[in-house]
Amino acid sequence: MNLLLLQPEDLGAPSQQHNLVTLSDERAKHIRSVLRASIGDTLKVGLLNGLTGNAEIRAISERSVSLEFELHTPPPPKLPLTLLLALPRPKMAKRIIRAATELGVSEIILLNSYRVDKSYWQSPLVSNESLTGAMLEGLEQAGDTILPSINRELRFKPFVEDKLPSLLQHKMGLFAHPYSTQAVPTKITQPSLLAIGPEGGFIPYECEKLTEAGLQGFSLGPRILKTETAVSAIIARLFL
Amino acid sequence: MNLLLLQPEDLGAPSQQHNLVTLSDERAKHIRSVLRASIGDTLKVGLLNGLTGNAEIRAISERSVSLEFELHTPPPPKLPLTLLLALPRPKMAKRIIRAATELGVSEIILLNSYRVDKSYWQSPLVSNESLTGAMLEGLEQAGDTILPSINRELRFKPFVEDKLPSLLQHKMGLFAHPYSTQAVPTKITQPSLLAIGPEGGFIPYECEKLTEAGLQGFSLGPRILKTETAVSAIIARLFL
Repeated sequence: MNLLLLQPEDLGAPSQQHNLVTLSDERAKHIRSVLRASIGDTLKVGLLNGLTGNAEIRAISERSVSLEFELHTPPPPKLPLTLLLALPRPKMAKRIIRAATELGVSEIILLNSYRVDKSYWQSPLVSNESLTGAMLEGLEQAGDTILPSINRELRFKPFVEDKLPSLLQHKMGLFAHPYSTQAVPTKITQPSLLAIGPEGGFIPYECEKLTEAGLQGFSLGPRILKTETAVSAIIARLFL
Repeated sequence: MNLLLLQPEDLGAPSQQHNLVTLSDERAKHIRSVLRASIGDTLKVGLLNGLTGNAEIRAISERSVSLEFELHTPPPPKLPLTLLLALPRPKMAKRIIRAATELGVSEIILLNSYRVDKSYWQSPLVSNESLTGAMLEGLEQAGDTILPSINRELRFKPFVEDKLPSLLQHKMGLFAHPYSTQAVPTKITQPSLLAIGPEGGFIPYECEKLTEAGLQGFSLGPRILKTETAVSAIIARLFL
């Protein structure tokens, strides 16, 4: 954890820029047991969906930690990127969404696809609560405060035909396709939408539909990467 | 699994380029239960540390799968990269080493560092057997056959002072350092050595020693990434 995230409900008057907060949940435990912080130590803090700043520890007890904090600095800028992700195996989905959040993805859309096992959608690991937890971890890791938006699209064809073209307005649309001859673009700055298929890839019909909607296929080279490796590698290649 | 790896001991006469093999271990189970392959189906195969090619399934039983294979194509080229990795938490170490293998890293050196918990070195998850398993998974994912070399360096100072300078001959040396003002280089082609610190980073003394040995610090930007995200992102940024 590189940033302690404060939630609006932690604060009495969230508009104040200089304030005191007392935490008694997992965060207090983390400050005591993992960071082993003492009175007078300072931490980087951020207000969820708000500014970042510093906090000084004023009191520590068995049950709670009190901090005086000041918020003054905007979080690091987001990437202008929508990640359209065929729902991965649930355990991997959590990790990928955490990593995408670390990297600064603005918007995540989880998409059904022929090779997505239907049972994945029912897993508690991909519930809103679980995925929000993964995103909060990503924010705390990266020193960010802004939750990405996350949506689910359970029907491939209606989504790609009816919604994707308007999502693509003023955006570059890309999809990872191992057999494309197009190399992955690099250091782009324009708003973009990146589609990444399931393990085994999008089926040819899906690739056709994505192409019709306006996405360009590209390849990362002769190696076929696991989805979790590919997501970090492609985003870094495109933007960092 | 995008490539079925054959081991030299699977084959009667490994020099033959056209041959038959019968498997009765986990690989046979994978072919039957995960790939659900039938007689006549073809698979991509490779010989460990050798060529890749195709195999056709000749027989399937409860216990075994027989394949006729032909090896004719070199595996994808490796990256000219040595990854010098402060030993991560063991569960994460396995994932990172699998991902580094997918991406084509030639050589991995696991390094001790001030922020590496000493107990990590004793974990069965980072035994030779466990890490070889992770690398084999990475090869099967990426369609590669060549195992990276892997070494352990348990003493930071003697390694960095006595061995690192000669490892760096004719190589570009880089280390990830969140507070560097240098941006990560891109699309490099020369042989390189990339050092990545533990969660929390190398301590200032270690950064000094790495710099003295000839490594240049660089930053990936304002976001601090988890080691597993950083490894894929940096390698993609440098090479892909």
